[in-house]
Amino acid sequence: MKSKPFALLVFFSMFLAAAVAQAQDPLPSWNDGAAKQAILNFVHVTTDKSNSGFVPVEERIATFDQDGTTWVEQPLYTQVVFALDRIGVLAPKHPEWKMTQPFQAVLSGDKAAMAKFTMKDLETIMMVTHTGMSVDDFHTIVKDWIAKAKNPRWNQPRTALVYQPMLEVMQYLRANGYKTYIVTGGGQEFVRAYAEQVYGIPPEQVIGSALETDYTYDKSGKAVLMKAPKLLLNNDHTGKPEDIYLFVGRHPKAAFGNSTGDQQMLEFAQAGGGPFLAMLVLHDDAKREYAYGPAEGLPNSKIGTFTEDLYQEAKKKGWVVISMKSDWNHIFSFEK
Amino acid sequence: MKSKPFALLVFFSMFLAAAVAQAQDPLPSWNDGAAKQAILNFVHVTTDKSNSGFVPVEERIATFDQDGTTWVEQPLYTQVVFALDRIGVLAPKHPEWKMTQPFQAVLSGDKAAMAKFTMKDLETIMMVTHTGMSVDDFHTIVKDWIAKAKNPRWNQPRTALVYQPMLEVMQYLRANGYKTYIVTGGGQEFVRAYAEQVYGIPPEQVIGSALETDYTYDKSGKAVLMKAPKLLLNNDHTGKPEDIYLFVGRHPKAAFGNSTGDQQMLEFAQAGGGPFLAMLVLHDDAKREYAYGPAEGLPNSKIGTFTEDLYQEAKKKGWVVISMKSDWNHIFSFEK
Repeated sequence: MKSKPFALLVFFSMFLAAAVAQAQDPLPSWNDGAAKQAILNFVHVTTDKSNSGFVPVEERIATFDQDGTTWVEQPLYTQVVFALDRIGVLAPKHPEWKMTQPFQAVLSGDKAAMAKFTMKDLETIMMVTHTGMSVDDFHTIVKDWIAKAKNPRWNQPRTALVYQPMLEVMQYLRANGYKTYIVTGGGQEFVRAYAEQVYGIPPEQVIGSALETDYTYDKSGKAVLMKAPKLLLNNDHTGKPEDIYLFVGRHPKAAFGNSTGDQQMLEFAQAGGGPFLAMLVLHDDAKREYAYGPAEGLPNSKIGTFTEDLYQEAKKKGWVVISMKSDWNHIFSFEK
Repeated sequence: MKSKPFALLVFFSMFLAAAVAQAQDPLPSWNDGAAKQAILNFVHVTTDKSNSGFVPVEERIATFDQDGTTWVEQPLYTQVVFALDRIGVLAPKHPEWKMTQPFQAVLSGDKAAMAKFTMKDLETIMMVTHTGMSVDDFHTIVKDWIAKAKNPRWNQPRTALVYQPMLEVMQYLRANGYKTYIVTGGGQEFVRAYAEQVYGIPPEQVIGSALETDYTYDKSGKAVLMKAPKLLLNNDHTGKPEDIYLFVGRHPKAAFGNSTGDQQMLEFAQAGGGPFLAMLVLHDDAKREYAYGPAEGLPNSKIGTFTEDLYQEAKKKGWVVISMKSDWNHIFSFEK
C-alpha cells in the first residue's frame, strides 16, 4: 500500500530521528551498554513528573568521589605530589630537613626510602605543607601550583587528567536539576582551589577532609583564618556519609566512587529510599590509563582499593560497575 | 518658558515615579533611614557592573545569625523550649528523672531551680533530648514539634515570630543574586527542619552548632546515621567565621547579627575586602518586642549579649546598628 514517496518520507524521518538522537546524546564518550543505560534511566525516572520515582529538584543531590573516580589517582595522588613539591619550596627555610626524615628522603629524591614511608611520615609531610598559613594564602599557593603542574606520563596539565565521561555525567545531571558535589578523602581546601575550573563545581559543593582553622588577627588588626595542624573531618569511609549529611542535610540520590572508601557513601544514597544510582569505576584499562583492583587480582597499591569484596557487594546491591575499558570510548578530552 | 501642559506632564511624571518607587520598594517594613539606605546602597554597589565595588554572582554570600537577628530569642531560645518539652515526652521512659536534677526541676516546673541551671545542667538536657536517635528520626521529631509549638506572649506559632523586615532583606538579597545562609549558634539539624518553610533557605545553607554522627546499620542492614553526644562544631564567636569558611570556602559579603557571638562573623565579612554590609539588630522596643542590651544598660540576661563594647566596635568599624523601634514599621507579619 505504501507509495514510493511515502517510503522515502519514512526513510528520511528515521534518518533524521537518528541524527537528532546522536546530536542530543548527553554522554557521547560512553559506549552503549548497561552503565550508560543506568545513567539515562536514572535521570529519566527521577525527573519525569508522571513517574513514581520522581524526585523534587531540591532533593536532587549527586556526589562524586574524586581520586580514581573523576581523575587519575595513580601512581600518586595529585595532592601528595603537591606536598612533595612543596617540601622542596620550603626547604631553604628549614636547613635541618637535609638531615631529618622524612624530609631528607623527599629532598634527595630517594624513591626507595619514600616507598617505605609510614602513615606517620606522610602525615608529617602533609601537616608542614598544609598548615601555618592563612586559608587565603593556601588557596593562592594551590592555585599557582596547579596552574603549572604537569603529569609526566601524558605530559599534560594535571587538571587535564580528568575523565571526560564523568564530566559529561556531571553536566548531564546538572542540566536535569541535580546539584553535583565532590566528596573526597583529599583535602577540601586543596580541591576547592580548582574545582570550579575543572568540574564547574563551586567551593561550597566540595566536601573533603578538613583541618581545623584558628580565627585570629594580623598585625593590622584584620581578621584571618589560619590553617591549624589538627584534623577536623576525615572524609573517607564512614566519614563520607557523615559529612554529606553535615554539609547537605540530605541523602544523595546518586553517588559515584571507585574504592572501599566510597562504599558507605553509596550505601547512604541507597538508604535514602526510592530510586538511586550507585556507580563504581573499575580501572581495567592498563593501556589507556591503569589497571588495578579486581581487574588485576587484589591490589598491591596502597591507594584505590577496589577490593574483590566491594565487587561482590556491588553485584549484591544493584550498584553499577563502570569498566573504563569497555564503557568509555574516550577517557581524556585531549585524546579526542 | 514652560507651557502648562508641559508642567502637568512633569507633575504626573513625578507622581508616577513616586508611585512606581513605592510599588517596587523591596523593603516595605523598613522606615526610611540610615539602616534601610545602607542595604539599598550595598545591593546597588555590588550588583552594578559599572561600579568598582561590583561582586560576581558566585561571591554573593550573605549570612544571618538566627536567634535575636531573624526571630525572637527572649525569654528562652526556641530550641531550649523544645528540649524542655522533650524532657516531658521522654519522662515516662525515665522514671528516675523524677528524683534526679536537672530533670526533676523541669518535670515539676520549678522555675526557681531552672533559673539556677548551670551550663552543665543545660548540656545534660540538650544531650538527652538531641542524641540517641537517627538523624532522620530527629528531623521528624523537630518538624512535628515546630508545627504545633506556640509562643505564649503572642499566642502565635513560634515560626510566626520571625522578623518581617529581615525576611524582606533575605528576599531582596536573593532577588539580586545573593545566596542567603543561616549561621546560628543553635543546632544545625534543629534549624534545618524548618528553615525552608520559615526563611526559604534550604538545609545546605544552614550552618550551625553540630553534634557528631555515627554511621551504622539497622537490624535490616540499612545504613543509618545516629546522633552522638559529642560536639563537633561550636558555631558561635570565632566558630562562625571558621565554619562559614568550612562550609562555603569564602568570606561573606553581608553579615547580620545581634550579639557578641556574631562579632567575628561581621569582622570576617569586612576582612574579605571590597564593599561589605555588617548589621546588628538592637532590641530597643519593649512594647512591640523586647528591650535588652545597650538599650537597657548592660544586659542581665544570659542571652543576646549586645554589649556596650560591641556597640562601640560597631561605630568604629562602620557597622550599621538597626533600631527595632525606629527602623522597623512592622516587626511581625501577623501584625499587618
